[in-house]
Amino acid sequence: MDILFLGTGAGVPAKHRNVSSLVLKLLDERGTLWMFDCGEATQHQILHTSVKPRRIEKIFITHLHGDHIYGLPGLLSSRSFQGGESLVTVYGPKGIKDYVDISLQVSGTYLKYPLKIVEIEEGIVFEDEQFKVEARKLEHGIPSYGYRVVEKDRPGSLLVEKLQEAKIPPGPLYKKIKAGENVVLEDGTIIDSSEFRGEDIKGRIVTILGDTRLCDNASLLAINADLLIHEATFSRGEEQLAYDYFHSTTTQAAQVARDAGVKQLCLTHISSRYDKRASQLHVEEAREVFPNTEIADDFKEITIPVHK
Amino acid sequence: MDILFLGTGAGVPAKHRNVSSLVLKLLDERGTLWMFDCGEATQHQILHTSVKPRRIEKIFITHLHGDHIYGLPGLLSSRSFQGGESLVTVYGPKGIKDYVDISLQVSGTYLKYPLKIVEIEEGIVFEDEQFKVEARKLEHGIPSYGYRVVEKDRPGSLLVEKLQEAKIPPGPLYKKIKAGENVVLEDGTIIDSSEFRGEDIKGRIVTILGDTRLCDNASLLAINADLLIHEATFSRGEEQLAYDYFHSTTTQAAQVARDAGVKQLCLTHISSRYDKRASQLHVEEAREVFPNTEIADDFKEITIPVHK
Repeated sequence: MDILFLGTGAGVPAKHRNVSSLVLKLLDERGTLWMFDCGEATQHQILHTSVKPRRIEKIFITHLHGDHIYGLPGLLSSRSFQGGESLVTVYGPKGIKDYVDISLQVSGTYLKYPLKIVEIEEGIVFEDEQFKVEARKLEHGIPSYGYRVVEKDRPGSLLVEKLQEAKIPPGPLYKKIKAGENVVLEDGTIIDSSEFRGEDIKGRIVTILGDTRLCDNASLLAINADLLIHEATFSRGEEQLAYDYFHSTTTQAAQVARDAGVKQLCLTHISSRYDKRASQLHVEEAREVFPNTEIADDFKEITIPVHK
Repeated sequence: MDILFLGTGAGVPAKHRNVSSLVLKLLDERGTLWMFDCGEATQHQILHTSVKPRRIEKIFITHLHGDHIYGLPGLLSSRSFQGGESLVTVYGPKGIKDYVDISLQVSGTYLKYPLKIVEIEEGIVFEDEQFKVEARKLEHGIPSYGYRVVEKDRPGSLLVEKLQEAKIPPGPLYKKIKAGENVVLEDGTIIDSSEFRGEDIKGRIVTILGDTRLCDNASLLAINADLLIHEATFSRGEEQLAYDYFHSTTTQAAQVARDAGVKQLCLTHISSRYDKRASQLHVEEAREVFPNTEIADDFKEITIPVHK
């Protein structure tokens, strides 16, 4: 489980920061990639990475501003051209379907894979046996959502010594016990699998927010997250500007991280007004409130380690 | 009058060739730029040039395939953000208006300048005292147009010696005579201005074609052009492929140039299957039919000199 930033700028592309997009790599977990936002030239950024567009399974759009969606028709088209065959599901606010449908239709684009577009509301937007994704509305000029990606807890590892003591024979039974299934031995003994496994391994939580003012839903989505990705379009002291333009400051992002008890904060959506040195000041401002803060750059990768 | 290529690839972006776009620089002629096609990340390419988006006056779209239009909403939005205030007119096939309107509307984009979108048919799509632009349909999978940009002839330079011999006093009268106006001297003499000017200076002609099979309209648009920009998606020997996919080969592009009597041919829309060496072969194939051939690369610039 890794985050790869593809674009970390705000509003318009700059030479060193493209507009918003990131990929949540779930290669070990499910062999796929989930993308969050897809600003123009996201497919161009991908050319400089090891990302395979055919592995993209889901695309979550936080909001419909151009710097978050104008790369979507191109990415979807190229994925078809490059041999993508599996279903892609796009989740996003109302309007995303019209935008994608008309873009593909006007350009005479026929995808060689099935495309599903889900216009979301607040609540659980996706759930299977591995993951749950919850969306809540943030505060922005147009509807903007944050996503909380929750990996479900997994059964703990096998207590092999205990299994051997109980004379349970290795093989298929171990596999069932590891998966949390109770089993019956040949002699009729019923085995409660939980007694032969360590504690459940807690799933990880990643919270990825769209553009927003400081708001309660940001904190609610971020509670106890392993990683919070929060916009920081403005610096400390620019709270009024941030409020007026529906964005956040570095310090506000750090407040959310602190109040929600997250493990790590990564700032993104950095205005091109800030050069590398100013970006470093950004991090320092945030660290005064929440020490474990980093700032995103295009192509930066953050690994979210498995819990022990 | 210069051509600046911003994207010279076919279908999907590659590291060294972006998808289609070029700019016809008319800075000396009218202080503006005309863009032809606007594939995704055209605005990103512009970041590496001296092009000022606020100077873009007109955008001509040849056809609606994604690799020719997906950069349009982002370019139009950023032009507003970057202080563009003057009118932009977009010309393109039916459907271009829906695409631009919905893209801007869904993303909540309000341009700070007037935008006019003209859905074209064959014929003269623009004309003023300086330029005339003619469009004709080519042969492609969807409606695809070629544009013939004709600079109007300008009155020749003043024959100053002859004016002096005729005792015409310098000043405002010279200006009128230069502009082609007949004038009356103080003593009542009527002056036919054409007698005091050299021959008219022929305007230049640039022909920029959308994707197409070999077709008559390509040649008609290109007659006597100073520069023909023609796609060459395939190599010599791939005529059947070119026909099947509604594209042209190097040799076919050269045939059009030769038959239309153009001065110079530049090949573009080069598939990413071809590396630099293969591209060089492209040029050589074309030169066997039409010697004055070049191949476009991203950021290549071609000056079209003023006629003497």
